[in-house]
Amino acid sequence: MGIGQVPVRESYSQSLRKLAATAVLQAMEDASVDRVEALFASNMLGDELQGQKHIAALIADEVGLRGIEALEIRAAMASGAAALRMAYLTVASGTADLAVAVGVEKMSEGVAAPILAKALDAEKEQADGATMVGRNAEIMRLYLEGYDVPEDGLANFSVNAHRNARNNRNAMFNDRRVSKRAVMKSRMIHAPIRLLDSSPICDGAAAVVLAASDEARAYTSFPVEILASSVATDRFRAMNRRDPLWLEAAHLSAHKAFRQANVNREDVGLFELHDAFSILAALSLEAVGFAEPGEGWRLGAENAIRLRGSIPISTMGGLKARGHPIGATALYQACEITLQLTERADKNQVPNAKIGLMQSFGGVATTVITHVLGT
Amino acid sequence: MGIGQVPVRESYSQSLRKLAATAVLQAMEDASVDRVEALFASNMLGDELQGQKHIAALIADEVGLRGIEALEIRAAMASGAAALRMAYLTVASGTADLAVAVGVEKMSEGVAAPILAKALDAEKEQADGATMVGRNAEIMRLYLEGYDVPEDGLANFSVNAHRNARNNRNAMFNDRRVSKRAVMKSRMIHAPIRLLDSSPICDGAAAVVLAASDEARAYTSFPVEILASSVATDRFRAMNRRDPLWLEAAHLSAHKAFRQANVNREDVGLFELHDAFSILAALSLEAVGFAEPGEGWRLGAENAIRLRGSIPISTMGGLKARGHPIGATALYQACEITLQLTERADKNQVPNAKIGLMQSFGGVATTVITHVLGT
Repeated sequence: MGIGQVPVRESYSQSLRKLAATAVLQAMEDASVDRVEALFASNMLGDELQGQKHIAALIADEVGLRGIEALEIRAAMASGAAALRMAYLTVASGTADLAVAVGVEKMSEGVAAPILAKALDAEKEQADGATMVGRNAEIMRLYLEGYDVPEDGLANFSVNAHRNARNNRNAMFNDRRVSKRAVMKSRMIHAPIRLLDSSPICDGAAAVVLAASDEARAYTSFPVEILASSVATDRFRAMNRRDPLWLEAAHLSAHKAFRQANVNREDVGLFELHDAFSILAALSLEAVGFAEPGEGWRLGAENAIRLRGSIPISTMGGLKARGHPIGATALYQACEITLQLTERADKNQVPNAKIGLMQSFGGVATTVITHVLGT
Repeated sequence: MGIGQVPVRESYSQSLRKLAATAVLQAMEDASVDRVEALFASNMLGDELQGQKHIAALIADEVGLRGIEALEIRAAMASGAAALRMAYLTVASGTADLAVAVGVEKMSEGVAAPILAKALDAEKEQADGATMVGRNAEIMRLYLEGYDVPEDGLANFSVNAHRNARNNRNAMFNDRRVSKRAVMKSRMIHAPIRLLDSSPICDGAAAVVLAASDEARAYTSFPVEILASSVATDRFRAMNRRDPLWLEAAHLSAHKAFRQANVNREDVGLFELHDAFSILAALSLEAVGFAEPGEGWRLGAENAIRLRGSIPISTMGGLKARGHPIGATALYQACEITLQLTERADKNQVPNAKIGLMQSFGGVATTVITHVLGT
């Protein structure tokens, strides 16, 4: 797997296509290939923020990949993982020998929140004023109250993410220390969600090149393999679910993926989860089975999530501190897991990580895509 | 292949999700299945016109397909074919036993043209005032002038499409006769494109259920097989191409598909092409090789494109007269070819059709997706 990452930043003057092309070219160089047969792109907000549809062909043209297959894959905020899945399926099925998945997002050119809200039901949620922050705030409140969690019970998810981001030059927030106290004193943006419980608005692009596993060794001496890829959906509206605190799609897709990869939860060396909000980190850990319902926050509070803990998460900063340029996020996760599994994660290296798990959520875990990577 | 088609209409009061769900349920009933494992959705304008992203999971929820994989696939106006391709790849690779591809569009809720223009380059075409109609008008002008084609040389493409639509109850224009004279007297909407050279703004939804070919016979006694699926891209901007009248991506993807299906052009019994504008019908016939460059219009003028001609096209009305509800269009094409290949096309039956070819264009044939269907 060849990887390419544009550093996540608050704002880039470069265009969407240029950012994406930079990531693709970097991934192709990392994989030592000068052509791929298929390109799968992901992006969530470009229709509105850049007035640009049809981005897969646009990126292929910008990179100079004449004639190749180029399609865009979407699943709201899980779009990057959807593109990765289709690239994987294309290569695994023998349809192409080499494919690239590229995600790109420029959130800085406009107001993202109302467009992000379009991942919710237009008629039955948006019409009532729901937004992504608002929906996650409701769920966080239910969690804190329902499980009697201390007010600062989730704060360590943010502290951990920021600690790990400091050693990642591609992270948006690699220049600051964030303490638990800082999290609890940060601005309340939508009670009980504070600024430092939330991933930032940002720009970025990341890409991975995939080759058939039996051929990958021709390109690299450190092949990382996608051992499993799975998607599951839940009731569209979180409030329609029997228990809005139980992320059934995260549970289902993780367990499908474990079966497919023939690994156990205990084999997972690190977990790049969808910590767009701190509450989602806790619920993910529960849905996948690393904690009982209502207990996920303890893994944060007790530091089990640190690099040398029992289940390291957000090892390069996560959505919280590496940043969450929506369509690109899962591709950053894939790049980071690749670095971990090939012992190239420098100061953030998780010792002896052989299996990396990654999850992306579209909407409030309405669509969940899970990948298992291994060496 | 199970098929479902909502009649194409100027406007539906039903919501996007309801139209899509109706098509999916109809296709599942036609295939005699009560569950699929994966759903691939296509839609182009819903982000802006309905304020709704994340439609694949929304449709799965509406149909009651709990827990399944659901992703959206896009390639501008070729999105429906992209969804079909991913459903095909998913089933062909054994990732799912049953998958559905569904396309839906409600163009009636707003002004579509400026949003359709987002398939063009935002910075280098839209910024200069280009639209899809405008770009196709330029190409039509180049064609008429460059090849010295009579002013009414393309009119029969529209006449043929309207004639075939009359016997298709799912067609938008099944209630009128259109003569060559009517085409030439119709309103000039963007010279030299007249109203009757253009596909209409409309609403619709269509779906197909796919099963692995060795299992399809358990579901139906008339299995139709996808013999090939291919995608190619061209320079993004038509005016950047060496010859804007040569649709290289249409040529490439058709020939990849013929090789994959192991068929020749001569084996093609009918061709559902992307006649969003009459000029595109002529250029498609040339790109695929049914006519020499500059000669495609003659196949229309000489009636070779009729149901009993040498290369029947738009056999149920095509984009022109069945209608072109963007994200749904290619799924209508797949349904129509299925009807033809299983001798269910009634008055529009093409005699002895064994192989059906379908093509979809994203942008000005920037992305072209080709499928070959056979029995």
